[in-house]
Amino acid sequence: MDQIPLYRRLAAHYREAIETGAMAYGDRFPSMRSLMARHQVSLSTALQLCHHLESDGWLEARPRSGNFVRQPRRQTVRPLAEPVPGQAPDPARYVGINARVSEFIARGRQSPVKVNFSSARSAPALYPGEALKNSAARMLRRHPELLVSPPHNNGDPAFRSVLAKRAMANGMLLTPEDILVTHGCIEALNLALRATTQPGEIVAVESPTFFGLLQVLETLGLRALEIPTSPQTGISIEALELAIQTTDKIKALVVVPHLQNPLGSIMPDSHKARLVALCALHDIALIEDDSYSALSNDGTPLKALKAWDRGGNVIHCASLHKTLAPGLRLGWLTGGRWQSRIEMLKYVHSRNNEELAQLAAADFMASSAYDRHLRRLRACLKTQRAQTAEAIATYFPDGTRLTEPDGGLALWIELPHGLSSRTLFDAALAEGIFIAPGLMFSNSNRFEGFIRLNCGAPYSAEIDAALKRLGQICKVLQS
Amino acid sequence: MDQIPLYRRLAAHYREAIETGAMAYGDRFPSMRSLMARHQVSLSTALQLCHHLESDGWLEARPRSGNFVRQPRRQTVRPLAEPVPGQAPDPARYVGINARVSEFIARGRQSPVKVNFSSARSAPALYPGEALKNSAARMLRRHPELLVSPPHNNGDPAFRSVLAKRAMANGMLLTPEDILVTHGCIEALNLALRATTQPGEIVAVESPTFFGLLQVLETLGLRALEIPTSPQTGISIEALELAIQTTDKIKALVVVPHLQNPLGSIMPDSHKARLVALCALHDIALIEDDSYSALSNDGTPLKALKAWDRGGNVIHCASLHKTLAPGLRLGWLTGGRWQSRIEMLKYVHSRNNEELAQLAAADFMASSAYDRHLRRLRACLKTQRAQTAEAIATYFPDGTRLTEPDGGLALWIELPHGLSSRTLFDAALAEGIFIAPGLMFSNSNRFEGFIRLNCGAPYSAEIDAALKRLGQICKVLQS
Ligand SMILES: Cc1ncc(COP(=O)(O)O)c(C=O)c1O
Ligand SMILES: Cc1ncc(COP(=O)(O)O)c(C=O)c1O
Repeated sequence: MDQIPLYRRLAAHYREAIETGAMAYGDRFPSMRSLMARHQVSLSTALQLCHHLESDGWLEARPRSGNFVRQPRRQTVRPLAEPVPGQAPDPARYVGINARVSEFIARGRQSPVKVNFSSARSAPALYPGEALKNSAARMLRRHPELLVSPPHNNGDPAFRSVLAKRAMANGMLLTPEDILVTHGCIEALNLALRATTQPGEIVAVESPTFFGLLQVLETLGLRALEIPTSPQTGISIEALELAIQTTDKIKALVVVPHLQNPLGSIMPDSHKARLVALCALHDIALIEDDSYSALSNDGTPLKALKAWDRGGNVIHCASLHKTLAPGLRLGWLTGGRWQSRIEMLKYVHSRNNEELAQLAAADFMASSAYDRHLRRLRACLKTQRAQTAEAIATYFPDGTRLTEPDGGLALWIELPHGLSSRTLFDAALAEGIFIAPGLMFSNSNRFEGFIRLNCGAPYSAEIDAALKRLGQICKVLQS
Repeated sequence: MDQIPLYRRLAAHYREAIETGAMAYGDRFPSMRSLMARHQVSLSTALQLCHHLESDGWLEARPRSGNFVRQPRRQTVRPLAEPVPGQAPDPARYVGINARVSEFIARGRQSPVKVNFSSARSAPALYPGEALKNSAARMLRRHPELLVSPPHNNGDPAFRSVLAKRAMANGMLLTPEDILVTHGCIEALNLALRATTQPGEIVAVESPTFFGLLQVLETLGLRALEIPTSPQTGISIEALELAIQTTDKIKALVVVPHLQNPLGSIMPDSHKARLVALCALHDIALIEDDSYSALSNDGTPLKALKAWDRGGNVIHCASLHKTLAPGLRLGWLTGGRWQSRIEMLKYVHSRNNEELAQLAAADFMASSAYDRHLRRLRACLKTQRAQTAEAIATYFPDGTRLTEPDGGLALWIELPHGLSSRTLFDAALAEGIFIAPGLMFSNSNRFEGFIRLNCGAPYSAEIDAALKRLGQICKVLQS
C-alpha cells in the first residue's frame, strides 16, 4: 500500500462511507480543520483529499458554506442494456473488418492528434519505467553474452517460472514448462487459433469484441460468429448454447472473461464453470484472453477459466502490456492439449523471444515492487475512469448510457439514439480528438451508436476540455 | 582491418601467394627468422602465422627440415555434382516435413550434445557482445521511458534509417519508410508468403533448401515445388522455366541468392537479372531471403535481387542474427507492392517490435565498429570452414564430396554412395555429436546421402576429434 498516496487512501475511505450510506447525500463534509485533526494530516493533504473527491464527483463545493456530499453525476447515467440472447448473427466470412479497422487506425495516425482516447493503454508514467530500466541494465551486466547468444527455447526459464508462480493466484497449477512466451497476447491468440482451426471454419467471439481479434480472424480466413455479451457478466451462455444448436460446427471460442474489451464485464465464477463444461462437451476449443485481469478495482485475483479445465481444452493467453509495460512486447500462453503444436507454430513463425525483456520482467515481477505497482495502477485507473465517467455524465447529451466497469482501462459508451459514432469520429478527429468508434468492435453495424474511450492517462484539463468538446459535438450532431 | 590480428593478415597474404602460384607446392616456406626479418614481427607472430597456415592445410611441417608449402587436402575432394534441370518433382502437399524436422530437432534437444554441428550460427564469441551490451545500456539511459512506452509503428525510425543506408551498398534504394522491422527473417518470410499466397497454392523453392522454410510452407498450407539448385550458382533458371511451363500456377518463389542454406551457392548477377525478369513476366512473387550476404569471403557487397526490381515484384527479407547477434531477434523486409498488406499482417500477428534491441543495433551499426566486426567475422568463418573442410578431406572416406562455398557458416557434404545421413545422425548423436541430416532440407528423400555441418565455432581439438569420429563412423557404416 505504501505507494498509494495518503490522500488517495483517505479518499477511498470516504467514498466507501458515502457508497454504504454512512454519509448521506447532502451532508456537510468535514472541514479542513477537522480533517486535519481527525486524520493527523497536513493542510495540503486535506486539500488534496477534498479536491480528489470533488473531481471524482463525490463532493460539491458551495461557496462560503464548505463541501457537501453529493451523488456523482455518473450514477444518474442509465447503464447499458443487456443483450438479447436470441439474435446470434450468421457466421460471416469477414470481408472488410480489416479494411474498416485499418481505415480508422490509419486516419488517426495521419491526422494531428491532440488527445488520444483510442488506444487501450495507460500513460508511460503509470508504469514502473525506472525500475524496469534498472532491471534491464542489471541483467545486461549479469549476462554479458545475452545479446549474442541464441535465446532459450519457448522462453526464458526464470521468466516462465515467475509467470507460473503468479498464475497460481488465478487458480492455475502450471509448471514453467507449461508456459510458452510470445510477442504479446496478440501472437498468443494467433497461435491458439492456428493450432485449433483451419481456414474457413467458425470461431465464436463476444459481441462487441476487441477489434484486434476480428483482424486476426480475417487474416486467418476464419469465420466469426458473434455471440451477444452482457456489459455486466460477459458472454451470454444461453446465446452460445443456441448458436451451438443452430449453426454449423463451432471450432473455437475466444473470450475475455475479465474486464472484457470493450465492455469491461467480468464473468461470475458460476458462468465460468458452465462455459468450460459446455465447450468441453461440444469439443469447442476455449481460448481465454486474460490480458486485463490484474486491473480489477479491488485487486483480488480473479480465477481463470483455465482453473476449471480438466481435459486440456482451455488455452490461456495473457499479456504484460497493460499491467507491466507496453514497451516489452511480452505475452504468454499455456496451450492445454495443443501445447506442443503451438510450440511448433511459434518456432516456425517467429522463433524464440529475445531474452533481455524477459529477464528484466522476471527480475521485477519476482519482487514485491510488482504488487505495489499493480495496487497503484489499479487505484489510478479507478480514479481516471471515475473522472472520465463524471465528465461524460456532465457534458454528454441526455440519453447517453454507460456501465462503469469494475476495473480496466476504458469506458464503453452508448450515444443517444440516432447518433452515429462514425460521424462523431470524423468531427472529433477534425479537432484532434481520436476516439474508437463502435464500428471497429463488430463485423456488423450493431455498435455504430457506441464509442470506446480510453482512461489510461491521468485526468487533466486537456482531457476534460476534450471530453467537453466531444459532448458539445454530440449535441450539435443531434440537433 | 585493425581488428584482424597481424598473423591472420600475413596468412591471407601467403595463402594468396600459394593460390596464385607465386609459391609452388613443395616449396620450402620461409624460416621463422626470415619471416621475422621480412615482416618486422615477433617470433610469436611468426609462429602463429605458420601454425595457422598449417591448420588451414597450406603448410606441412617436416621434422628437422622446416615448413613446406602443400596443397590443402580439401582441394583433392571432388566437388558436388550439378543438378539435372529436367527433374522438377510434383508440387506436393506437405505431409510430414514438420514431423520429420521436429523429430531431428527434438532428438538433438533431448540428447546430451557435446559438439553441435547442427545449427546455422556462430559462437557468441564471434559477435560484438560487449559493444552491443554497452549500446543497449546507453539506449536505456538515453530513453528512460523506453520499456514503458509503446514501440514505433513498423519499427524504430533510427534503426530503419540505418538499414536503409546500408541497403544502398547492395544496390537497393530504400527510404526508412520502405522498411518493416520483424522478429527475425523467419517472421519476414512468413509475412511475405501470407501476403502473396492463399492456402493450397504452389510456392517454388530451391532444392535443397533451408528446412525452416519447408516448415513455414507446411504450416501455412502451401504446396512446395522443389527446383534443382546448383552448389555453385544457385537455383537453376532452366529448371524453373520448365516448371512454369509444366505445372500449375506458381504463386511465389523463395530464393536465397547469396550463400544459400545449405549449399552456400552465390547467384551470378546475370542469373539475378534473368530471374527477376522471369518472375515479373509470369506474375510470380519473388521472395528474396538475404540473411547471409554480409558473410561472403571477400566482403564486397553483393547486389540484391531487389536491385533489379522495377515493378515491386520482389520482397526482400533479411536478418541480423547471422551477422550481428543471434540474441536480438531482429530481421526486416521491404515488401514491394505488398508493403501495406504486409505491414497490416505484421501488426495483426505480432504488433510492432520492442524498441530496445532495435536501438542497440542501430547504435552499433551506425558506427565503423560494425564494419570492423564483419571483417573479423568473415575472416574467422573462412578459416573455420577451411579447417573443417580439411578435416573432412582427412578423416572422411573416399568418395565424400564437398564444394567449398565462398562464405557463410556451413558446409554441405555428400557422403560416399550408399551411406544414409539418417544412420549417421543416429550413430553420431549416440556419441554426443549433433549434425543436420540432408533429409531435413527437402520434402523428398533426395538428400538422404548429404549432411550439413556448421562451422560457426572456432576450430578446436574437440571439434577436430568429433570430425575424426564422424569420419570413422562413416567408414564403419560403409563396411
Ligand atoms: C482483449 C485484448 N487482447 C489482446 C490484446 C493485444 O495484446 P498485446 O498488446 O499483448 O499483443 C489487447 C490489446 O489491446 C486486448 O485488448
Ligand atoms: C536461409 C535462412 N533464412 C532464414 C533463417 C531464419 O532467420 P532468423 O533467425 O533471422 O529468423 C535462417 C536461419 O537459419 C536461414 O538459414
